[in-house]
Amino acid sequence: MEYKNLDSLSSFKDLENLNPYNVKSNINKKRIDSYKVSEGAGLTYSYATMPVDETHLKAFQDLADECSVIEKYKTLLNGERINTGEDRLVLHQLTRGQILNDVISDGENKGEFYKLQLDRIQAFSESVRTGKIVGSTGKPFKKVVQIGIGGSDLGPRALYLALRGYCLGQGKDVIEADFISNVDPDDVANVTRDLNFEETLFVLVSKSGTTQETLTNRDLVLQALKNTNIKGFNSKKHMIAVTSKTSPLANSPDVLDAFFIDDYIGGRYSSTSAVGGVILSIAFGFDVFNEVLEGAHEVDKLALNENILENPSLLDALIGVYLRNTLGLGTTAVLPYAQALSRFPAHLQQLDMESNGKSVNRNNERVTYKTGPVIFGEPGTNGQHSFYQLLHQGTDTIPLQFIGFKKSQFEKDIITDGSTSQAKLNANLSAQIVAFALGKNDENPNKVFAGNRYSSLLSAQQLTPAVLGALLAHFENKVMFQGFIWNINSFDQEGVQLGKLLAKKVLRGCDGDEILLAYSDMLK
Amino acid sequence: MEYKNLDSLSSFKDLENLNPYNVKSNINKKRIDSYKVSEGAGLTYSYATMPVDETHLKAFQDLADECSVIEKYKTLLNGERINTGEDRLVLHQLTRGQILNDVISDGENKGEFYKLQLDRIQAFSESVRTGKIVGSTGKPFKKVVQIGIGGSDLGPRALYLALRGYCLGQGKDVIEADFISNVDPDDVANVTRDLNFEETLFVLVSKSGTTQETLTNRDLVLQALKNTNIKGFNSKKHMIAVTSKTSPLANSPDVLDAFFIDDYIGGRYSSTSAVGGVILSIAFGFDVFNEVLEGAHEVDKLALNENILENPSLLDALIGVYLRNTLGLGTTAVLPYAQALSRFPAHLQQLDMESNGKSVNRNNERVTYKTGPVIFGEPGTNGQHSFYQLLHQGTDTIPLQFIGFKKSQFEKDIITDGSTSQAKLNANLSAQIVAFALGKNDENPNKVFAGNRYSSLLSAQQLTPAVLGALLAHFENKVMFQGFIWNINSFDQEGVQLGKLLAKKVLRGCDGDEILLAYSDMLK
Repeated sequence: MEYKNLDSLSSFKDLENLNPYNVKSNINKKRIDSYKVSEGAGLTYSYATMPVDETHLKAFQDLADECSVIEKYKTLLNGERINTGEDRLVLHQLTRGQILNDVISDGENKGEFYKLQLDRIQAFSESVRTGKIVGSTGKPFKKVVQIGIGGSDLGPRALYLALRGYCLGQGKDVIEADFISNVDPDDVANVTRDLNFEETLFVLVSKSGTTQETLTNRDLVLQALKNTNIKGFNSKKHMIAVTSKTSPLANSPDVLDAFFIDDYIGGRYSSTSAVGGVILSIAFGFDVFNEVLEGAHEVDKLALNENILENPSLLDALIGVYLRNTLGLGTTAVLPYAQALSRFPAHLQQLDMESNGKSVNRNNERVTYKTGPVIFGEPGTNGQHSFYQLLHQGTDTIPLQFIGFKKSQFEKDIITDGSTSQAKLNANLSAQIVAFALGKNDENPNKVFAGNRYSSLLSAQQLTPAVLGALLAHFENKVMFQGFIWNINSFDQEGVQLGKLLAKKVLRGCDGDEILLAYSDMLK
Repeated sequence: MEYKNLDSLSSFKDLENLNPYNVKSNINKKRIDSYKVSEGAGLTYSYATMPVDETHLKAFQDLADECSVIEKYKTLLNGERINTGEDRLVLHQLTRGQILNDVISDGENKGEFYKLQLDRIQAFSESVRTGKIVGSTGKPFKKVVQIGIGGSDLGPRALYLALRGYCLGQGKDVIEADFISNVDPDDVANVTRDLNFEETLFVLVSKSGTTQETLTNRDLVLQALKNTNIKGFNSKKHMIAVTSKTSPLANSPDVLDAFFIDDYIGGRYSSTSAVGGVILSIAFGFDVFNEVLEGAHEVDKLALNENILENPSLLDALIGVYLRNTLGLGTTAVLPYAQALSRFPAHLQQLDMESNGKSVNRNNERVTYKTGPVIFGEPGTNGQHSFYQLLHQGTDTIPLQFIGFKKSQFEKDIITDGSTSQAKLNANLSAQIVAFALGKNDENPNKVFAGNRYSSLLSAQQLTPAVLGALLAHFENKVMFQGFIWNINSFDQEGVQLGKLLAKKVLRGCDGDEILLAYSDMLK
């Protein structure tokens, strides 16, 4: 397999010479109807308001081919050590199901290993939900609290919030979940303050079993547990772990049970492993989590398509590269028109920025082109009453990723002024896409909207578990494909190391470093 | 008063020629100790890791002087119609206390008007908190839910979350609050699902009394109330309004009481008016809200200082202009090391991007320089495990606004590995500032940190109500000063209009617009 820098590809040079398609003056129904692709699980990717036409699409296909992105994806699926920085396999897609060859590593079939954990999660979560496993004082668990940070927090939290309304709307029993992540002691104090510890199960999530924030928060929780002085209470019956087999948490007598991941599941890609699976299965039932996996798996399979017009995550990736490397746009806004996706942008922020916020290629040589953009976002319509002013009339163009659904989750609606709330929500979504694309002329420059503010739309019937899995996999695969195109390693994160080292130095008293000392004194 | 474009000022031309100060190789204890300014209320602004030295500071002072920013601020305080786009006064600072002349408008003294509302809020909130005012079935209110969007949501929500831990930590009685904002019907369904309506007071917030999202959500809430079929229940005793005197909500028989704002308080600047005051006073007690006002007022007064070295919000504004207009940096990250400030970045996102995301000057002429940046952020240490990778090693420089406090709010802490959680939190904060500024060389380019990733730090003893008010005013005044320097109107928001118009068109059936129709069909 050849890995080449983007700027050494002749197809990229062609792309660099292409002017953006003028959406503003060349959009019609035909284009809107044809510039969309079905993704698995009922998800559709529409890109009619992106600055591309047939010429760009041809150049994208050439780029994908010259870069062998599908071959690279196959290499990854087949278990090559594609995470070169850490010399690791990359197997998060395998947690959703096997697509190509068996992957054998560490003396085991990794697909079977993930499946075994899944079976264990199913059995355990069913025991909790049916009251077979209860707390130390005999009470069933009514709350589950995950202690973890980064990928052990953002993804699972975003998915939990995304599915809670759906499950309640479907009349399912929901065990409420909460999350503790920040080493700020106020995070633990706030979450544990009103907890009924007798009915609470904690899920301690740390791959290495040594994450400072997570272990410290566990200790704070254990102290709060101790302070309750409940007769017969045994904290060991209220804590389980998600960790790697080799971690200090794996066989700890302090936890009731442990579920395993391994080094081949990066934190930001771990939502479909036990990291997300345990808490989601306990909260909603294993079948719900399994549907998430099925939706993601369908998208993973579709992503093997060499034809970019039948591979939405690859097409999205290529459009993103054009926006970033030819048009020079450095920020992307993620705008879900669904309150249930309130924290999904925060998850994508980690997924994208931690994966592709790199300046060296896979051979550890500096690249001279731009890589991953800044990602931010909030749900619509809230964002409309907040930062959309800048998106419409600011001095920079910010590409937009809209997400929308035909139906709400609770399906509790009302007609006011002749329309339901859901209709109002989606009227706003349609209106914004068109307003950004077409803009508006006016004699008064303060009322002019420049237009050509590019967007794409991911839409589906309803935000179901399968659609959520599909959405998650769409973005994971988009980020992966962009990493291939930029020739960077999307799976390591060297950029987090220096801060860790210096924080330890501060905690040791700064080792005579006067600059660290000056700052730490300011905060003491 | 003269209003000139930034690029017509000779002092800006001087600034444009200044290279950034090389923080990486020229930082020491002396610089850290001297490059900081006290803001009111115990808040300190530190800028030693910003790319500026005495030469820049001199140029900043010249720019502030040539632009007459303090005179413009005085003009605003004295009640000139400085919001030219909407022909309005701008009086949010007056909600915190009077600084200069009496402001007379609409036949009344506006300072007295705001003070009167404040007195009414005090009386009402005390009646609720002492059980003098109770629900329609005789039960005291134990929950308050604000229905509002944009500035009626983000600011009050951010402040509520910021102070809850402090008040609980101080042993105060807290009436829990929640917020409904999105027109997505799932937002109402989710918030109201587990409500005890008999003990809930709703605060309906809309200046115009006609905000579509807010009225629709009120109707959804009223329907949910009706469905409860509680004997003797009367929804009119469970709803109050915050609105303008001339709005349809002002004298509505459907609300128990109404508290007033006026057209001179922009939504994103309304947290210190009745929009934030009612819910915060009910939740925490009026004294807490009053301390927020006092902290903000202190900062407002300090912002009159002509000397930029004694005026931190002005200095912050000038550094921001240098980063944006000389160095070309288009995004800023807000990184509070306090879980209590989890939604403060979302508030600042609205405040800054809606105020300064403009392309025309005060005379409605297009400007040819960059204006407001994109603002995003999440609390540390969470962000460190998420998007910091890109901040450290990505291909763009993103200026950083850190916020930190010596003490936690609950002050429930534990010592593990020789340090408290709060010490660990702040060790990480110090470490990150230094890591971003100094970077690190390494033989392996993947372990290289370029350094000169600029940041500033706002710090205080503890996140108290007064400090929170000071923080809020710091950013409001920073944004105002930047608006003066860019010669734009920071107080209107024409960019939100087009989407509103088109959404109405969609709800009418698209009026034959085939593009709108194509999108609305996709979501039907």
